[in-house]
Amino acid sequence: MLTRIDHIGIACFDLDRTVEFYRATYGFEVFHSEVNEEQGVREAMLKINETSDGGASYLQLLEPIREDSAVGKWLAKNGEGVHHIAFGTPDVDADADAIRKKDVRVLYDEPRKGSMGSRITFLHPKDCHGVLTELVTSAPPADPEH
Amino acid sequence: MLTRIDHIGIACFDLDRTVEFYRATYGFEVFHSEVNEEQGVREAMLKINETSDGGASYLQLLEPIREDSAVGKWLAKNGEGVHHIAFGTPDVDADADAIRKKDVRVLYDEPRKGSMGSRITFLHPKDCHGVLTELVTSAPPADPEH
Repeated sequence: MLTRIDHIGIACFDLDRTVEFYRATYGFEVFHSEVNEEQGVREAMLKINETSDGGASYLQLLEPIREDSAVGKWLAKNGEGVHHIAFGTPDVDADADAIRKKDVRVLYDEPRKGSMGSRITFLHPKDCHGVLTELVTSAPPADPEH
Repeated sequence: MLTRIDHIGIACFDLDRTVEFYRATYGFEVFHSEVNEEQGVREAMLKINETSDGGASYLQLLEPIREDSAVGKWLAKNGEGVHHIAFGTPDVDADADAIRKKDVRVLYDEPRKGSMGSRITFLHPKDCHGVLTELVTSAPPADPEH
């Protein structure tokens, strides 16, 4: 069950300049940044608000680290803008399976690694009225004993 | 000060079919629907979660009622997909004024009527790294005496 807007994924040519735009214009700060080699992106998460399911909503700014990454190819075709939207769920595996049975194409056989240790999958935009749609299950809180 | 992701605006060719896709695929229900003559759209708001500032985050599904509306022209060029993102603020006038002073073009001289009695304005996507960005102040709660 999808319980929040987890993030809006925004593709950009220059992550540092785009981070600076969001800071200077709106006061949004970087909550987390990382490189996702598998997705071929360098990214910054800007936390905008917390949500009623105990999670949060972010902007995810994405700069490709390879031209042949999905985001790199998308940027070359479309220019900067909203690349995808993501819904949070407690159980991405169950939701992906249920959605697959509704004849919506799920892009991965098994969820992969997303931001901040999350597990993610994507739905084909042609099956979602043009919207590349991600499903995300956040990482569990760190074990305080370790 | 922008305190939440208020909504993601998604342009579609057929509002009823798109509403049905979001209901059948994810279980999202229509919270509110209206026609905004000034914007030239028929729209449905799907409430996804509540937010830590006392507001909520929605998907806003938009079907043009005129081909020459902004959304109609955008759809003809781009096809279905994410049209804009919107941040909620307690004071759209103050935020629009502050952002205008940062050399980001604000599209309206004064905020106009948005969904559910809100007041809205838009920022030029070319000044926002390709993202058409809306600022929203929700309508105050209805007076219980009336």
